[in-house]
Amino acid sequence: MVTGSIFNNNIINFNKEKSIRSAWEKAGKEKNNQKIDLSLGNPVDPAPDLIFSNMSTIITTATKKGFFGYLDNAGDINCRKAIAKELTLKKYFKKPIDPSNIIMTVGASGAANCTIKSLVNPGEEVIIISPYFVDYPKYILNHQANPKVVKLLPPDFYLDVNTIARNITKKTKAILVNSPNNPTGRVYTYEEISALSKILIKKSRQFGHPIFLLSDEVYREIVYPPHKFISPCAIYPNSIMLYSFSKSLNIAGERIGYAAINPQCVKSHELSELIKISNRILGFTNAPGLFQKIIPNLLPLDFNIRNYEIRKSILSNALQKAGFEFKEPEGTFYFFLKLPKNEKKFFFLSEKNSLFFVKSGPFGIPGFIRLAFCKDIEVINKAAEALLNIGKSL
Amino acid sequence: MVTGSIFNNNIINFNKEKSIRSAWEKAGKEKNNQKIDLSLGNPVDPAPDLIFSNMSTIITTATKKGFFGYLDNAGDINCRKAIAKELTLKKYFKKPIDPSNIIMTVGASGAANCTIKSLVNPGEEVIIISPYFVDYPKYILNHQANPKVVKLLPPDFYLDVNTIARNITKKTKAILVNSPNNPTGRVYTYEEISALSKILIKKSRQFGHPIFLLSDEVYREIVYPPHKFISPCAIYPNSIMLYSFSKSLNIAGERIGYAAINPQCVKSHELSELIKISNRILGFTNAPGLFQKIIPNLLPLDFNIRNYEIRKSILSNALQKAGFEFKEPEGTFYFFLKLPKNEKKFFFLSEKNSLFFVKSGPFGIPGFIRLAFCKDIEVINKAAEALLNIGKSL
Repeated sequence: MVTGSIFNNNIINFNKEKSIRSAWEKAGKEKNNQKIDLSLGNPVDPAPDLIFSNMSTIITTATKKGFFGYLDNAGDINCRKAIAKELTLKKYFKKPIDPSNIIMTVGASGAANCTIKSLVNPGEEVIIISPYFVDYPKYILNHQANPKVVKLLPPDFYLDVNTIARNITKKTKAILVNSPNNPTGRVYTYEEISALSKILIKKSRQFGHPIFLLSDEVYREIVYPPHKFISPCAIYPNSIMLYSFSKSLNIAGERIGYAAINPQCVKSHELSELIKISNRILGFTNAPGLFQKIIPNLLPLDFNIRNYEIRKSILSNALQKAGFEFKEPEGTFYFFLKLPKNEKKFFFLSEKNSLFFVKSGPFGIPGFIRLAFCKDIEVINKAAEALLNIGKSL
Repeated sequence: MVTGSIFNNNIINFNKEKSIRSAWEKAGKEKNNQKIDLSLGNPVDPAPDLIFSNMSTIITTATKKGFFGYLDNAGDINCRKAIAKELTLKKYFKKPIDPSNIIMTVGASGAANCTIKSLVNPGEEVIIISPYFVDYPKYILNHQANPKVVKLLPPDFYLDVNTIARNITKKTKAILVNSPNNPTGRVYTYEEISALSKILIKKSRQFGHPIFLLSDEVYREIVYPPHKFISPCAIYPNSIMLYSFSKSLNIAGERIGYAAINPQCVKSHELSELIKISNRILGFTNAPGLFQKIIPNLLPLDFNIRNYEIRKSILSNALQKAGFEFKEPEGTFYFFLKLPKNEKKFFFLSEKNSLFFVKSGPFGIPGFIRLAFCKDIEVINKAAEALLNIGKSL
């Protein structure tokens, strides 16, 4: 019998939840031209000129026949070769990776869904670490597995491998790690990742099956010295890298990323085939084609974080002066602030100043807010001013 | 406990199945330059010149800031407005449709997955009609519902609403219909669709809940006179249109389509919201952005089927002369042939002639083959010749 509702009950409930998008949509509806929207992590900077010029050349010189046709479900082989070359060059894995271990996907969110679908059987568990990206629990529930949340503690959000270890059970199939971390701005150190790797190896032995590590690395280019990005894939063999060019090329709306299976992963070739099939049957079919023709010309990526450093510095100064409690982001383009004691007044003042941001509830932790600084410098300056005003009035 | 396999058991099994892609990949590996690949429905014709010229203009004149950024999960509002206008103009629904009832998706396969996810609760049933598009059962299984197959009978594959009626139970949540039909080439008549609509209305009343009709219309522009496309959405209120520009604009690899909810559908606005959320949490996030900027300039679509008529006619003549048993396609770019009695010899001769096609098993019916004729005219001529040779030798 149809169970209660005429639509899917879970999605009906999700529709009642707040998400990052709620704040963005609210900001979008705001008529006020003075609004300061630090909600969505939607980079406002232009994509590299090379993308525009390459696209223009490709479009005007293309052999039009079949130009926009279906690709192999795994994606364009030249694009995958270029990515394999970059990953090998940058030693993100211990061993050289073959293009056959790379599947082009509809962003990292597509990569996450295809990978989780390929790994989990119903009732198995995937560990996620709070604060986490809002949609992680849903990516796991989509495929009938259960998210198991391990809470990291403020103010440092240090990767607490002992608590992780205690949460690993015989049902644990995988752990999803995100460094540089959205929303905390943490970049896990070699020591933290090594300790995690050791625990995962130990627990895999103890329970007699591999525990896979999914490494969401969409912010890996955005790291502030002296901090340094270390891919968990370089340390732990049974790992799958989830990547998107959304943030590193400012092309978030074009939905292009990949899953890359560690060449040292158990049955890596079979897993590649399964992710490719998941890509097909979940309805992605193939990642969008045009950008796969262009991306090879931009690899290896050379990302300049100067623009983000400037914005971070402006906001950081303002936040300090205004008396907010926060840690300087080590990577990403987010500040994660502790809510001031007088929350109510803070929200009132923010609204009065037309300052939009995301509350931390959907990230799996209460009492914080996230400010995205991938915004125009004018917006950042206004935000700094507003935060100073708010700080004075609190 | 992890259940048997280190990966997902279903996907492991899917990996052993033949799919349309198997034949395509096999053909792709064939070194022989003389190969005649009629396997995948991947249109080889160029996309309209307008796409290339529009893209070139947009790319060279774009305000680069934020140009490739995230869109609303439902897609670009201007694109959705243009589509709403076209759907209203062409009377594909009885009433004018609002852009808020349109969600841009990663092709029709994305639209199907988002819609099914939004509708079904675990254990509910979705009726599919064999022969069906190979991945339909998987789209339903993805979301923990069960596909229930109703078999249409050769040689006519008439839409047998009595058998459909007998298969509707209290668990039936939806029926997935595809006209023009891949692989049979059938275009359902007004009478067939009306009869289906009446049965669905009757059964919805009988079981006390709406039975939704999902109408996969990706081939609706490819119909051969005097046959005429009738959208089930124009007749049955609780319907959702699944569409892709893959075939009508020859941009299958760019993954752009939509779900459009009948304005007369029960709780249509809530359903739109749910499909939008499904689009986000399944990892699509938004349909690729660039094409959403271009498509409005191509609407309403004006599709010329002349090229397909020519190819159909060449193959039809050859198939008749060669003595194959088949019905002329009423729409789509597929011939669906009964396998000759001497199957083994036929397969042997096909291989000898380097002729690639898809066997009908994955479509849910044995004993047929599908030939796709969205191919270069030279390939079609070679195929005609090969089929004549094969016919003579059988």
